[in-house]
Amino acid sequence: MLDFSFSEEQQAFREMLREFSLKELLPNYTKWDSEGEFPRHLWKRLGELGVNGLRVPEKYGGSGADCVTTGIAAEEVGRGDFNLTYAVMLNGLISDIINNHAADSLKQKWLPQIASGDKVVGIALTEPAAGTDAAGIRSTAVRKGDRYILNGEKSGISAATIGDMFIVFAKTDQQSGSRGVSAFIVPRDLPGMECKGYEDMGNVLIGRGSIYMSDVEVPEENLIGLENQGFSQVMNGFDLSRLLIGLQCAGAAFQSLDETIEHVKTRHSFGKPLAKYQGVSFPIVHHYTHLELIKWQAYRGLWLRDQGKKHSKEAASVKWLGPKYSQEAIHECLLLNGHYAYTKEMPLEQRLRDVIGLEIGDGTAQANKFVIAKELIGKEYKPY
Amino acid sequence: MLDFSFSEEQQAFREMLREFSLKELLPNYTKWDSEGEFPRHLWKRLGELGVNGLRVPEKYGGSGADCVTTGIAAEEVGRGDFNLTYAVMLNGLISDIINNHAADSLKQKWLPQIASGDKVVGIALTEPAAGTDAAGIRSTAVRKGDRYILNGEKSGISAATIGDMFIVFAKTDQQSGSRGVSAFIVPRDLPGMECKGYEDMGNVLIGRGSIYMSDVEVPEENLIGLENQGFSQVMNGFDLSRLLIGLQCAGAAFQSLDETIEHVKTRHSFGKPLAKYQGVSFPIVHHYTHLELIKWQAYRGLWLRDQGKKHSKEAASVKWLGPKYSQEAIHECLLLNGHYAYTKEMPLEQRLRDVIGLEIGDGTAQANKFVIAKELIGKEYKPY
Amino acid sequence: MLDFSFSEEQQAFREMLREFSLKELLPNYTKWDSEGEFPRHLWKRLGELGVNGLRVPEKYGGSGADCVTTGIAAEEVGRGDFNLTYAVMLNGLISDIINNHAADSLKQKWLPQIASGDKVVGIALTEPAAGTDAAGIRSTAVRKGDRYILNGEKSGISAATIGDMFIVFAKTDQQSGSRGVSAFIVPRDLPGMECKGYEDMGNVLIGRGSIYMSDVEVPEENLIGLENQGFSQVMNGFDLSRLLIGLQCAGAAFQSLDETIEHVKTRHSFGKPLAKYQGVSFPIVHHYTHLELIKWQAYRGLWLRDQGKKHSKEAASVKWLGPKYSQEAIHECLLLNGHYAYTKEMPLEQRLRDVIGLEIGDGTAQANKFVIAKELIGKEYKPY
Amino acid sequence: MLDFSFSEEQQAFREMLREFSLKELLPNYTKWDSEGEFPRHLWKRLGELGVNGLRVPEKYGGSGADCVTTGIAAEEVGRGDFNLTYAVMLNGLISDIINNHAADSLKQKWLPQIASGDKVVGIALTEPAAGTDAAGIRSTAVRKGDRYILNGEKSGISAATIGDMFIVFAKTDQQSGSRGVSAFIVPRDLPGMECKGYEDMGNVLIGRGSIYMSDVEVPEENLIGLENQGFSQVMNGFDLSRLLIGLQCAGAAFQSLDETIEHVKTRHSFGKPLAKYQGVSFPIVHHYTHLELIKWQAYRGLWLRDQGKKHSKEAASVKWLGPKYSQEAIHECLLLNGHYAYTKEMPLEQRLRDVIGLEIGDGTAQANKFVIAKELIGKEYKPY
Repeated sequence: MLDFSFSEEQQAFREMLREFSLKELLPNYTKWDSEGEFPRHLWKRLGELGVNGLRVPEKYGGSGADCVTTGIAAEEVGRGDFNLTYAVMLNGLISDIINNHAADSLKQKWLPQIASGDKVVGIALTEPAAGTDAAGIRSTAVRKGDRYILNGEKSGISAATIGDMFIVFAKTDQQSGSRGVSAFIVPRDLPGMECKGYEDMGNVLIGRGSIYMSDVEVPEENLIGLENQGFSQVMNGFDLSRLLIGLQCAGAAFQSLDETIEHVKTRHSFGKPLAKYQGVSFPIVHHYTHLELIKWQAYRGLWLRDQGKKHSKEAASVKWLGPKYSQEAIHECLLLNGHYAYTKEMPLEQRLRDVIGLEIGDGTAQANKFVIAKELIGKEYKPY
Repeated sequence: MLDFSFSEEQQAFREMLREFSLKELLPNYTKWDSEGEFPRHLWKRLGELGVNGLRVPEKYGGSGADCVTTGIAAEEVGRGDFNLTYAVMLNGLISDIINNHAADSLKQKWLPQIASGDKVVGIALTEPAAGTDAAGIRSTAVRKGDRYILNGEKSGISAATIGDMFIVFAKTDQQSGSRGVSAFIVPRDLPGMECKGYEDMGNVLIGRGSIYMSDVEVPEENLIGLENQGFSQVMNGFDLSRLLIGLQCAGAAFQSLDETIEHVKTRHSFGKPLAKYQGVSFPIVHHYTHLELIKWQAYRGLWLRDQGKKHSKEAASVKWLGPKYSQEAIHECLLLNGHYAYTKEMPLEQRLRDVIGLEIGDGTAQANKFVIAKELIGKEYKPY
Repeated sequence: MLDFSFSEEQQAFREMLREFSLKELLPNYTKWDSEGEFPRHLWKRLGELGVNGLRVPEKYGGSGADCVTTGIAAEEVGRGDFNLTYAVMLNGLISDIINNHAADSLKQKWLPQIASGDKVVGIALTEPAAGTDAAGIRSTAVRKGDRYILNGEKSGISAATIGDMFIVFAKTDQQSGSRGVSAFIVPRDLPGMECKGYEDMGNVLIGRGSIYMSDVEVPEENLIGLENQGFSQVMNGFDLSRLLIGLQCAGAAFQSLDETIEHVKTRHSFGKPLAKYQGVSFPIVHHYTHLELIKWQAYRGLWLRDQGKKHSKEAASVKWLGPKYSQEAIHECLLLNGHYAYTKEMPLEQRLRDVIGLEIGDGTAQANKFVIAKELIGKEYKPY
Repeated sequence: MLDFSFSEEQQAFREMLREFSLKELLPNYTKWDSEGEFPRHLWKRLGELGVNGLRVPEKYGGSGADCVTTGIAAEEVGRGDFNLTYAVMLNGLISDIINNHAADSLKQKWLPQIASGDKVVGIALTEPAAGTDAAGIRSTAVRKGDRYILNGEKSGISAATIGDMFIVFAKTDQQSGSRGVSAFIVPRDLPGMECKGYEDMGNVLIGRGSIYMSDVEVPEENLIGLENQGFSQVMNGFDLSRLLIGLQCAGAAFQSLDETIEHVKTRHSFGKPLAKYQGVSFPIVHHYTHLELIKWQAYRGLWLRDQGKKHSKEAASVKWLGPKYSQEAIHECLLLNGHYAYTKEMPLEQRLRDVIGLEIGDGTAQANKFVIAKELIGKEYKPY
């Protein structure tokens, strides 16, 4: 039976995080951007609040929460600090991958540290010549006794400069396309690992960058899932991150609308509050409504995942439209707030820069539309 | 706890109606339009299938279904014959109004006939000078002993030419605005009632038209709700019809997309099926996804109504975007089907004409956006 | 040097046609649609006013006007009767083709009758399996002595039921693709020609339909241009019709806006004229501005053609956006006029139906975007 | 007669500036942003090339060019360095104001220094409580003998930190609304002038900020135009800047598209260049076409201004849609370029930040739509 209500526990979690987010995160949101610093203490603080370990089972120090609850965290943290939602999204994605596919020794080693916020982890999938198309991966992992030797360059990697460990995708079968790809746990401090940060438009503190691997040796147990089939096995994890991305963007956009509504009630033009002009209130209605639509699509996708049902189409729709609607809403809010919103003293311009980062990361609009097309029309009608 | 699954009973009801709709309704959908005839036998057939009496309590011959189930009927009947969804929407709206506010004698008289499909009923609210703004109503109802004498002209009334009874809004207090309006049950065959049909762009068989009342006498028991407060009491019923309208439009649009997907798989251009061009598949993805978003918003609104929770904002969003998204999707389908879809041998051009009728009826986009604005920003910021 | 002014002669021609269009055409615009009759007397009347023969040289009874002047006629006639703009567009296209490529005897025979309005002519290009992709043409023209024998089926042909003559495209070389196609002048009254009309959504009086050719014999002089190369030679004519289509659609939409502006000044809601709500005036501004943009793009394209400069990209943009913007504007006007505009007593619903016909005819949005892509990005990047 | 060709001189000027812009400006475009430095040497260089003094009459050291030529400069400089277009736009606006309304002594003093690039000048109109609504101005200018004493705070002022002189608007009649406002030339180095820069999202080198005036004394000759009527007199100058803004934004966007077209030809995904996917090429076509439309609307507006004809509606449309279309195009280009475009090593993210500044400055979308509404519908239908 349909039910659109959250449990009391979920509701309380949301309220706790909303308060934390607005009181503790929002006032410093722009600070980390302008100072270019990663607030590791807040990452740990989120760990204490149970945010980092939502998808980590209780026996590994997490809360073993469902995906819906994880979505609540993404949305609420997004209201306070868009970038710190990576503690939900990236950790959720990686926890799911490790928990579902890695050896138990790796779970015991990494999951508690993820949950506590002691460690920051990343996913190293994309390369200079391999974005949407994973078959283009050129990094290699060659077996040598009980170890794999990794070589190659990963680019556009979130947390490249702050991560303690990465899940690295590399070709174990040079002959195949995306089927010959495997995934490995690769600690950052191994010899041969070099990480270089970018100067980015936004998501500054997340430390996106490139990772260069020169004869990096990892033990065979660091292989996640089966050799050569790691890609398709692990890929499923991205359906979670796509849904969370939609909610973290929506959270930032909802907060922007709330702030803007206060502004247009107060600011007068030609003797009336701006809010009394339909040219002002209707765009607010437009964006609020579209965000509400995509928010519920995201929770539906997360619920489907919790039920073990297919949800790739829903995840793709949320990844495509969540960042897009949010970017459009924040952009409109910036314009409705006028001159002052163009400065770094208000959070709007940073939210816009930050959200655009997730319009790109984790799948372009085209890639996501294609996932939906494949399901609606059939695999045999793919355009290549 | 969130749950996005329909009950088994609802699922079975949907499947039954889907089959009926595609087998029995769709093949004749365009016939009633070109012949301009109201298929009263199908209206009764829908009554037998339980569609007309979904919102009629069991003791009055209906099934007493919840709003969510009513929504399923709107969506599925909409796939086969957009106009016959009035058996869901108009009947649902009027059943709710009668059941919640009318005297028991009226319930006993009208509800069973609505449920069985024996009678067609309508709502007579709008007037030449009163559309969105109910305070502009000029029709009058003057008390005279135990009767009310009604005079005035109602325009843009659905089922004007086919209706057996109308719920008529008229001013009982000439001094007030929308507060002085009351609602009455007015059988069509009373002396002084005259109904005149329009030649419309679409919704042809629904027989929209004007109703002219000259000294029409109704007994006082025909007053629905309290005198002078009928308007606000009854208005709440429109939150139901707005949600159902969204689903009936979405049903017609989903069906159009299904048909179009078959077309683009088969039709070739430059040696490839049309479906292999992203210029074709991406618009399909766009419209399918937006329809899915608004569909779930509609079910959420209906669920809120079932729970007795506030849902005016949701209803307004569905009335605004449901017909809009559907019109856009059907329009795109028409174009993707090319030359042949411009003829009356395919149902697309009629669906487009029909759906546009519900972009206007029951509240313009502006009126609905304003409902949302009032809730988001506050009543005191209305633009007049 | 830039100059955005029309010549005095052009200005006078525009004013004359504006007056004629609003006084003589507009009052009966809906009549021909509801009666399904082609007003041949108005076609002749337009001939007398110099509209039909704008692109016919003076020596053949026309005015030998430039393309810009022809565009003025399309725009102004479109204000009064969208369908009668075919006297500009179809005649313009065919006059250019005949004048540029046909034998002199054919010019002498056909051009004066086109100019006077005595004859109606059409283009028979598309077939059931050949729309955008001309290489799919299956109609054949086989040489036999000094004649060609034509066989095949043409579908979606404007003026199929009213045309006296058609320019028919057929394959003269069965081995080649679009290169083996030639064009012929084929009078409708030849033995073996059969024309069958459709019941269309709009453009009713234009009599769109299918043409069936069974061993139709035409003399070899009826070949237009060179054998096997007719297609590419003649195709250039479509750049003219695409530009004119944009203007005839814009004319209908501008007229709709003018009518709507009058409506919203007069109609009150909540005590104010509708025009005072930005939710009403801003959409009017939106559509007016976009129409103005595409109108000037059309005149620029026509001017380029007059100068003998490349204008395919401009023509494609106008064919893509002209009907689209116009359809959107008219649709909005219909909604802003409310209930009454949904009836056939106002011209808006017909304009909407009519304009949609030219969203399809003469090239889909996709086909036109592709023309632009080819020019911007390069032929080698076509998606097939 | 229509003519869409530029003169040979204009064409040569465009080519010279295109080359200069791409060779000399573009390579350092991002440098000034990241270093936060105003490249005064390039401002002077533009002066040498005749850019700064386009609207300065020859006798005052300028070239006395027409507005169309000025537009060419805005477009071409915008391709290389969006921010340096202020040398066209701001100088053009201020030159027109000074030349049309100021005393000759002021012309002799300021115009040559503007033309040479020796001085940077700005407009100080907006205040914390007066953006779109000039009647809200609270700065005062009180006459005292042959001087005016200015007090007040100006906010959101371009060139606040780099300007040598400002045209300041202040109330000379405290009782009136916008009619009691006058304009003054106020050198920055006068006692009582204090300028404070903002940390902005973009347009960094332009040094936007606030200006605080405490008993700033200017001689009466510094009054521009008539007392109390300066506002409406001077306001006309903004029609020029609005048109130039559209072109400088379009220039930046066209350049972004050119760069993106090169990228999608080269970058492969699933074995094909990105350009071969309609999901990639169609957005490029979309944005290119819309930019072309607004570009020509801008040149039409500039031509109208050159002819002394009304052009406020055109200017408003260009100010509304020019920055909007450009922002959308650049945003799309950023996404199509993928991960790498999110870094500061490519100019796209800066262009996006820069262009957004001119979505706000010089009139919001709403303010500009309102200008158009007033002209289309009538002054008496303004929404306040």
